[in-house]
Amino acid sequence: MTQILNSSPVKKKITKELKSECKKLIENGIQPYLKVILVGNNPASLVYTTNKKKYCEKIGAKCDIVSLSENIDLNLFLEIIYEINHDDQVHGCIIQLPLPKHLSHLDVGQLVAENKDVDGFHPNNLYSVLSNQTSQNHFISCTPKGIITLLQENFIEISGKRVVIVGRSMIVGKPLFCLLTNHDATVTLCHSKTENLRELTKQCDIIVSAVGIPNFIDETYLSPKKNQVIIDVGMNVDTAGLLCGDVDFDKVKDLVHSITPVPGGVGPMTIVSLAQNLLQAAKNKLSL
Amino acid sequence: MTQILNSSPVKKKITKELKSECKKLIENGIQPYLKVILVGNNPASLVYTTNKKKYCEKIGAKCDIVSLSENIDLNLFLEIIYEINHDDQVHGCIIQLPLPKHLSHLDVGQLVAENKDVDGFHPNNLYSVLSNQTSQNHFISCTPKGIITLLQENFIEISGKRVVIVGRSMIVGKPLFCLLTNHDATVTLCHSKTENLRELTKQCDIIVSAVGIPNFIDETYLSPKKNQVIIDVGMNVDTAGLLCGDVDFDKVKDLVHSITPVPGGVGPMTIVSLAQNLLQAAKNKLSL
Repeated sequence: MTQILNSSPVKKKITKELKSECKKLIENGIQPYLKVILVGNNPASLVYTTNKKKYCEKIGAKCDIVSLSENIDLNLFLEIIYEINHDDQVHGCIIQLPLPKHLSHLDVGQLVAENKDVDGFHPNNLYSVLSNQTSQNHFISCTPKGIITLLQENFIEISGKRVVIVGRSMIVGKPLFCLLTNHDATVTLCHSKTENLRELTKQCDIIVSAVGIPNFIDETYLSPKKNQVIIDVGMNVDTAGLLCGDVDFDKVKDLVHSITPVPGGVGPMTIVSLAQNLLQAAKNKLSL
Repeated sequence: MTQILNSSPVKKKITKELKSECKKLIENGIQPYLKVILVGNNPASLVYTTNKKKYCEKIGAKCDIVSLSENIDLNLFLEIIYEINHDDQVHGCIIQLPLPKHLSHLDVGQLVAENKDVDGFHPNNLYSVLSNQTSQNHFISCTPKGIITLLQENFIEISGKRVVIVGRSMIVGKPLFCLLTNHDATVTLCHSKTENLRELTKQCDIIVSAVGIPNFIDETYLSPKKNQVIIDVGMNVDTAGLLCGDVDFDKVKDLVHSITPVPGGVGPMTIVSLAQNLLQAAKNKLSL
């Protein structure tokens, strides 16, 4: 019987912990405070930012969405971030992607101050993941962190396992590669130039797909042993207009050991990780 | 007939280029200047630093070895590096590893200023490799850079190829993983916790060994197709006291497409990369 890696029970457990931590911080005079910068009216971005705000408020943190015009002037945009970086009341800041064309040349990872970069995109935060020197002063990128949490909470062994990640982005593929390697997995990072991808995915214990193509992973990518773990990071819209992942869930679900659903798998774990990072940022402030 | 990837012809070609570049820089009033910090009397370190100095001088650059006592005070050590970081005459600085115990807690990557870090160990330099945003303002770690150069100069295709790297250090394994991925290879990073390593090495096109164990890779790790490329990063001493790599050269050499010798393979390429980085640092100064 396939294990469906639904994030709900994990999320419920961690939410309880975060509420209690948040309460303690507030008792110490610090209410964790996140600013989410949203440029333009991308419908998906609007949903994502609203979900993040709702979850922060649920655990007792404060969250403002800073909505900016699609055509905002570059200098004004930078000034707003500068002010947030220097605002003692704000503990975390994230910039919702994608940015409009005239801002897309910016290296988002370098905009938010390292100690408020709860998305984990700052060079120093990524360096800590690459060098396996993670500490409470560093933030781990939310989606990779959420995947590790989901595996651990479901008692899925990582050490010694073979993992194939498909997709080499700086948001998922590359930092997840580093994290899993730090956890003693043997990881292969695949991408659009990989030849014979199926040969690799058939051999591994865990497949992570982060390519953004509906039904990309189907039964032809799997081992006949039915013992694999499938992590679906895709957030796509199918032809019927519904949210779907990279994995053809119906074709795959009876042929594997466990699989994350979309929605309800990796997505909510990303938001949980963000809230964990925010509380960590607030705690760091307290210990200063 | 196996191709022996001797670095001599590549080194000779690049040395000529570097001499000419160095001459131009001197004509523009800048003599590239490297400081090598050497703590203690480790015999291997003494050989390495002397080789680096000799090569710098050969291409027309200036190089000083700053020899410090094994027992140097931590604060004095940091002060010396601080002064070099702020010395306008010096373009590059490297700290020869290993450091004595009382300094080994230092994150060497953070000591030398980013713009003089010709070893490519600074977080921002490693971030540029991780994020594939390399530019003339960033330095790529010398051994990984040298390996890419050696492959390219020998017309060995990287894009689309499968590579297994054994060893996940911050000096070789991890940055080389990033570089090869950026060059469109599909890379698996293996280490001491990898199970069934032979299964992986037998399948790939290029094997890179950076584990520091003599005769670690022998014929049992190879594909029967005799079409693999073997890159030996090992710098070990065998039971007879001679320099040797990680690969059992005699057992392997007739069973592969090409192989780097030790000595005379990757080692000299590391020094060539260092000199390339030093000249780049000096050029960056010129363009300021």
